[in-house]
Amino acid sequence: MPDRIKIFGDQRSGNCLKVKWTADFVGRTSEWIDVLAGSGATQDPAFLAINPAAQVPVVILPDGRALAQSNAILLFLAEGTKLVPSDHYERARMWEWMFWEQYSHEPSIAVRRWQLSYLNIPVDQIDPSLLVRGNRALTIMEARLGQTNWFAGAGFSCADIALLAYTRMAGEGGFVLIRASVIGSNGQRVF
Amino acid sequence: MPDRIKIFGDQRSGNCLKVKWTADFVGRTSEWIDVLAGSGATQDPAFLAINPAAQVPVVILPDGRALAQSNAILLFLAEGTKLVPSDHYERARMWEWMFWEQYSHEPSIAVRRWQLSYLNIPVDQIDPSLLVRGNRALTIMEARLGQTNWFAGAGFSCADIALLAYTRMAGEGGFVLIRASVIGSNGQRVF
Repeated sequence: MPDRIKIFGDQRSGNCLKVKWTADFVGRTSEWIDVLAGSGATQDPAFLAINPAAQVPVVILPDGRALAQSNAILLFLAEGTKLVPSDHYERARMWEWMFWEQYSHEPSIAVRRWQLSYLNIPVDQIDPSLLVRGNRALTIMEARLGQTNWFAGAGFSCADIALLAYTRMAGEGGFVLIRASVIGSNGQRVF
Repeated sequence: MPDRIKIFGDQRSGNCLKVKWTADFVGRTSEWIDVLAGSGATQDPAFLAINPAAQVPVVILPDGRALAQSNAILLFLAEGTKLVPSDHYERARMWEWMFWEQYSHEPSIAVRRWQLSYLNIPVDQIDPSLLVRGNRALTIMEARLGQTNWFAGAGFSCADIALLAYTRMAGEGGFVLIRASVIGSNGQRVF
């Protein structure tokens, strides 16, 4: 398969899975290579030669060039497909939600999930601000999806894939997904 | 000026300034409206109606629509200009550096700068991991700029603007910019 890409990723990572989902959706053949986050594997010199930032996911293109950062890979794979709105403003809104996801969603929801369900840190030793900030992010998402079916544009876009990744795993981080809007800023349900 | 945009921003914020710099560079007329971060102004209902994420910068387009997230605004303003590489892979590398900036650079360098120089928190009360992670980010940048003059593509792009924003202010966060590569992972100079 001359267009086959290699995805170096961890199957427990939403950031890695979203790359695989996008490749599948746009019909791009891919080969998955497991690289376990937190195992030291991303500090291996061979891996650092691919991604000096020592993070997964990374993809290797058929010509051998590498590309990192999950949402950058999504945009790369999806360019020219219906996953990217053709309207300039709607495309920018898609970028807005994707940057917001990496800055204001993943650092609380994915991190609390990792600490709680994979590092098995007792809940009372986890930074309480992660729950507050994660619930704030979920509330912002719920408000948006109360207005429209999709985060940006008239249909399914890269923004929806990006935000799905860790939202679907939020329960493993102790977040209550049902009616997130009734959870106050202190992380407690308001009724 | 029918194409004039409004920029709601804080002049102390690299994220806000990079939007202004990009507007200026591409010749887009803009009006700056001060919104002080940390003042509660972003929690005002009128502001939340513009950006439910309660963050600056936000721009208002001539037709009244809003757009948030600094790097999404950069991509919006720069589309079709020489700030965006025409090659698909180089454009993706630009996105890669821009997502990396928001995930791995800003949360350590900008946050430590804010705490040290604006909140006046004593240095021994600041999370020591901010210095370690910020120096790691600076080291990755230096390695890249040892190979090429620009982060992505053959010339100046949005990635350079995004990374300039807080790097130029890193000194206010206690980071030593000269020869960052000789600073070890513990944040101390290695000679």
